Amino acid sequence: MNLDQITTTTLLLDKEKCKKNIQFMVEKSKKNNLIFRPHFKTHQSRIIGSWFKQFGVNEITVSSLKMAEYFANDDWNDITVAFPVNIREIDTINSISEEIQLNITIENTESVDFLKDHLKFPIGFFIKIDTGYHRTGVSFDIVLSVSKMLKSASNSDKLEFKGFLSHAGNTYNTNDKNEIIDIFNDSRKKLIQLKNQFIDKYPNIIISTGDTPSCSTVSDFKEIDEIRPGNFVFYDLTQYKLATCKFENIAVAMACPIVAKHSDRNEVILYGGGVHFSKEFIEIKNQRIYGQLVELTNTGWKKIDEDLYLIKLSQEHGTIKVTDQIFKSLKIGEMVGIVPVHSCMTANLMNEYTTTDDDLIDHL
Amino acid sequence: MNLDQITTTTLLLDKEKCKKNIQFMVEKSKKNNLIFRPHFKTHQSRIIGSWFKQFGVNEITVSSLKMAEYFANDDWNDITVAFPVNIREIDTINSISEEIQLNITIENTESVDFLKDHLKFPIGFFIKIDTGYHRTGVSFDIVLSVSKMLKSASNSDKLEFKGFLSHAGNTYNTNDKNEIIDIFNDSRKKLIQLKNQFIDKYPNIIISTGDTPSCSTVSDFKEIDEIRPGNFVFYDLTQYKLATCKFENIAVAMACPIVAKHSDRNEVILYGGGVHFSKEFIEIKNQRIYGQLVELTNTGWKKIDEDLYLIKLSQEHGTIKVTDQIFKSLKIGEMVGIVPVHSCMTANLMNEYTTTDDDLIDHL
Repeated sequence: MNLDQITTTTLLLDKEKCKKNIQFMVEKSKKNNLIFRPHFKTHQSRIIGSWFKQFGVNEITVSSLKMAEYFANDDWNDITVAFPVNIREIDTINSISEEIQLNITIENTESVDFLKDHLKFPIGFFIKIDTGYHRTGVSFDIVLSVSKMLKSASNSDKLEFKGFLSHAGNTYNTNDKNEIIDIFNDSRKKLIQLKNQFIDKYPNIIISTGDTPSCSTVSDFKEIDEIRPGNFVFYDLTQYKLATCKFENIAVAMACPIVAKHSDRNEVILYGGGVHFSKEFIEIKNQRIYGQLVELTNTGWKKIDEDLYLIKLSQEHGTIKVTDQIFKSLKIGEMVGIVPVHSCMTANLMNEYTTTDDDLIDHL
Repeated sequence: MNLDQITTTTLLLDKEKCKKNIQFMVEKSKKNNLIFRPHFKTHQSRIIGSWFKQFGVNEITVSSLKMAEYFANDDWNDITVAFPVNIREIDTINSISEEIQLNITIENTESVDFLKDHLKFPIGFFIKIDTGYHRTGVSFDIVLSVSKMLKSASNSDKLEFKGFLSHAGNTYNTNDKNEIIDIFNDSRKKLIQLKNQFIDKYPNIIISTGDTPSCSTVSDFKEIDEIRPGNFVFYDLTQYKLATCKFENIAVAMACPIVAKHSDRNEVILYGGGVHFSKEFIEIKNQRIYGQLVELTNTGWKKIDEDLYLIKLSQEHGTIKVTDQIFKSLKIGEMVGIVPVHSCMTANLMNEYTTTDDDLIDHL
């Protein structure tokens, strides 16, 4: 990696780590007979998408119609938008579904009724089920709502029911692997209970799930048909702290120039702020943490002995608190690495990747 | 405003409110004999920049060399980068300073020494002074550090000392106007104390300050030479809650489609998440708040009677908690408005503005 050529805040991507993460999830899916429909909102990149293709992946998930268009234009022919459908974008839905197999996510009858009247081409739809995260979705036990949507859709020749989709995002609020597995199992149980009530009429119901913590941790996926993890492609500090990845699995780090040092408080100011990392944080011992310091090397970055954190973030400034020894060793104008708290948000802000072997990689 | 034409999450800009905000600060600066050097990191827009030009503004502030280049290419000829200089970007500094009056911000001797050796064209520099915010800057009472930087710079024919620059960002952590004024006065006192120690040798020292809370609130700017507020161009919910603007001064709001409703908890899910608003929040009664609900109208938006907030934010989802009555009135596919917590971060993510009279406005 030619660090001398990097003059400003730059998102580094370690290709090998990233490809290993992809391979890990591909193999896990195969072993468990799962449809692997990775969520591309994390990387939003055609080139990284092509690495998935090399592993035989053909079906993907995105979170917006804009992303669906971007990947449809890159020869992805089976795309699920895992976000409650925004019916105002009907023209975009019609233009994408004319070209490819588009699947959308629905959670209310109003959307079904609108789509029946306005769809020009067939699309698949999943019903979004809330199994306990309480963000979106129909509660798994409100069977009547599900029946209503299915009934309304049943006389449409454009709306094909695919199955039940859930996102157990509550796995992010856990303290150990067993809690993640418990949430996964609970969510699965609820989805299967629901499926059993509709299986006679819809024998091909797909149960689709897939937050990265569950998909990384769980080994028994019985009765699940499809997984849609996204973050695993890079992982990040959040996943590491959840113990859902190892530090060496994290495939992105921000290279940040040092612009100031304050010896009275052992704080080093980086050119790297909310416009680079986002202001997402995790809390460790009541302290907000925005990233973790790593050492940049000729081939990428490596963990240092101490756990030192990015503890403050303004629009462009980042503050790391370091030890006396490290404070002395760091020089104005030098670059340090920061592993971000949330790689999806960080990649979305940076809009491109520089690989540790000096390639530039696209982002939507 | 043609709301029917807006199909997805869109940042609305009310031109008239924005121009009034500009006029307010222009007049305040004139009245107080201040150099008005507005911070353009908030809007990052050539068109909005042109509105400042119409009011006679010629000097601006930015927070990155990239922004400096963007505005230099748009005929702005006097630009201060109010961020500790990143010496790795020396080539960009040299290319900009060949064309225009570029001023940078310095806070350590290492940067002075590097610049002395590498600058090709004259630039101005401000020394960044910490008057109590403790983010960046040399502490106002460490006169020795200031002397060292000035001494090192004094034998360079490229480095022209302009003055002392501070940002009293601690005004954001206040509960009433008097606290803001106290912080401003305290900061001013420290800057003047410092100036007095160098005025004999540097008779033209500029004292430059300028967070939006102070500039909006303070009426006595005596002995301050220059102000650099940025956020005031739009204001936002943070400023409103600080009482540094009125609600009707807020010049931006996000139009968000309603994609889901959950009657069991009176929550409405908007297409509007961290990728639109950023995850910046304020806390009201221990609740994190990401924005406030407003009603969209034919001419823009208006405050509603209740204070209803955006209380949860994922990558694309936003959750508003509403009253029974409003819950009933909101329809799937309808648009609602959200006044953002931090307009700078929101504008930076959205990358363009749609005016309430249906123009599209650029963003870097």
